[in-house]
Amino acid sequence: MKIENKEYRTIWFDSDNQSVKIIDQTKLPHQFIIKDLKTVKETINAIKTMEVRGAPLIGGTAAYGMVLAVKENNGPDFIKKSSEDLIKSRPTAINLKWAIDRMMKKLLNVDKDEYLSVALKEAKDICDEDEKFCENIGLNGLKIIEEIYNKKKDTVNILTHCNAGWLATINWGTATSPIYHAHKKGIPVHVWVDETRPRNQGANLTSYELNEEQIPNTIIADNTGGILMQRGDVDMCIVGTDRTLSTGDVCNKIGTYLKALAAYDNKIPFYVALPSSTIDWDIKNYKDIPIEERNPEELSHLEGLDENNNLKKVLIYPKKSKSLNLAFDVTPAKYVTGLITEKGICEASDKGLKKMFRQ
Amino acid sequence: MKIENKEYRTIWFDSDNQSVKIIDQTKLPHQFIIKDLKTVKETINAIKTMEVRGAPLIGGTAAYGMVLAVKENNGPDFIKKSSEDLIKSRPTAINLKWAIDRMMKKLLNVDKDEYLSVALKEAKDICDEDEKFCENIGLNGLKIIEEIYNKKKDTVNILTHCNAGWLATINWGTATSPIYHAHKKGIPVHVWVDETRPRNQGANLTSYELNEEQIPNTIIADNTGGILMQRGDVDMCIVGTDRTLSTGDVCNKIGTYLKALAAYDNKIPFYVALPSSTIDWDIKNYKDIPIEERNPEELSHLEGLDENNNLKKVLIYPKKSKSLNLAFDVTPAKYVTGLITEKGICEASDKGLKKMFRQ
Repeated sequence: MKIENKEYRTIWFDSDNQSVKIIDQTKLPHQFIIKDLKTVKETINAIKTMEVRGAPLIGGTAAYGMVLAVKENNGPDFIKKSSEDLIKSRPTAINLKWAIDRMMKKLLNVDKDEYLSVALKEAKDICDEDEKFCENIGLNGLKIIEEIYNKKKDTVNILTHCNAGWLATINWGTATSPIYHAHKKGIPVHVWVDETRPRNQGANLTSYELNEEQIPNTIIADNTGGILMQRGDVDMCIVGTDRTLSTGDVCNKIGTYLKALAAYDNKIPFYVALPSSTIDWDIKNYKDIPIEERNPEELSHLEGLDENNNLKKVLIYPKKSKSLNLAFDVTPAKYVTGLITEKGICEASDKGLKKMFRQ
Repeated sequence: MKIENKEYRTIWFDSDNQSVKIIDQTKLPHQFIIKDLKTVKETINAIKTMEVRGAPLIGGTAAYGMVLAVKENNGPDFIKKSSEDLIKSRPTAINLKWAIDRMMKKLLNVDKDEYLSVALKEAKDICDEDEKFCENIGLNGLKIIEEIYNKKKDTVNILTHCNAGWLATINWGTATSPIYHAHKKGIPVHVWVDETRPRNQGANLTSYELNEEQIPNTIIADNTGGILMQRGDVDMCIVGTDRTLSTGDVCNKIGTYLKALAAYDNKIPFYVALPSSTIDWDIKNYKDIPIEERNPEELSHLEGLDENNNLKKVLIYPKKSKSLNLAFDVTPAKYVTGLITEKGICEASDKGLKKMFRQ
């Protein structure tokens, strides 16, 4: 998708420079910086500090991390250690493990001298596949938006939480892909963008990328979705997910659950968009999902532009106060209207998911 | 209650200086500044800019605004105009109209030369009564906390939203009063403080005032309450209200509704604490409550301390983005476990409220 009218993907291999290029998302929206990753360590750091984030992009980055690993040292110990360290870099998004498993499976079947070329191809395949899946999610989700538009004959108001946009994937996004496809088709859409405290990925990334694609959007405090739904100002919700259980329970950015409850209370459809790489077929009870706890400073401090256009970080809490920073919550399946996947839309349930992916 | 170990009320008349003293709450938690109001215009400005806020304190401030009005000019036109302008200064909190009506009723029955003394007495009475009511709310709410403690035999975790603390009233607070009373009685309590975007009154005021009274508390993003409830980390919720309909529907700070939904979903008691001055006996349909829309800059800009301890305001949104700043939402009565009032705890319903207040 576009930034300042130029097309980008979120990650790519620069063969001239022999490095992995990423957009440093911690600097958005105030600075657009493309960064080089040259080592596994740098890759792990980029995932941990959320220079790259979003379950599908974390998967893609981990795959390229394995490319950098085999470039650095193609001994089996180093490769194994790298894969383990990459998996541990963030706990909640399941795509991380999925991508590493896929890379390791390929590497196990070839000779050492083929490692680099095989790793490069597989990482690119993972990314290309993610892009294709996200495009399909868009085409599938488009039908829902179209249906609402055909009834309403007026702008379709869609609420989203956090950033499940193209910046969270390789391209298109998950939750945003149906929106981009609707916009392309000339359906008038307007997006309510949840700010998404504490890291404000809604404001910093979703609103930013929608602006760059000329899609009307309004940032709201995370507290605001409820009254907008009560007032009839939301036609549907679409969010992403970091891990979807086979039961249909959805683990996503903290606060998603509250919007799902409000949508349910106001009879507004609440959809979750995901590539099948985010499905966890193993865990059955959502209480077993590891929920990441991050640095409380992400809550108590905020960075922005001062009056001289300089980036400044300020403490916004009382000095004596402490805070807790949980990054995800779980929306029980009963509050999810449907899952928009690359294969089609299915019920958020064991039956729905198995029918779509395991038949 | 205490700030830096000294007892304060939130508003008082300084007879030496012939002014009304307030704590400028827009400067908290980083600066503690006591400010003088000398005119109606300054009073209206203090309410509009939220130097004073919270339904009960807005009522008390409006009452003292009428004192300043009669001091400035005791002609009937000026007094009438002042009362109207004060009522219009903020739209949602019902106490504003309630306090002005009470002041005007007193003034209508006395001679001009008694205006000042009568106004002063009535404003003080309104404030004293609010303090007494809040104390009673505390004693009534204490019973609920005590009951949980007697069962649990461990720290009672209470979630609150925004600031319905002593800073929102004259003293004690509404939602915080049961907490202060429990703490005084030696019951171990811990408060989950919703940050409360966009103005962060939870972090800036509630956490601040709890710190000053040595009550353990943790600030959380507004998104976090849901998962804490799912995990069993919240024993009860108590919030305040800006306007309580006779139907039991509760209009309070934006986001309250979402927490009530989560509490309901997790079978956690959700109480609303209020003095009877916040009851609106007229409006029957919550959709008729005027919901204040404030300046979007309250969302897009935030003030805090930079590394040199200087207050700095920074832009935290993309420059091209727009935002919507609604200040309140409505929690339907069915999600409210009970109303904690100065007279006792009643059902959030027409029947419950009438039985308590209109028999």
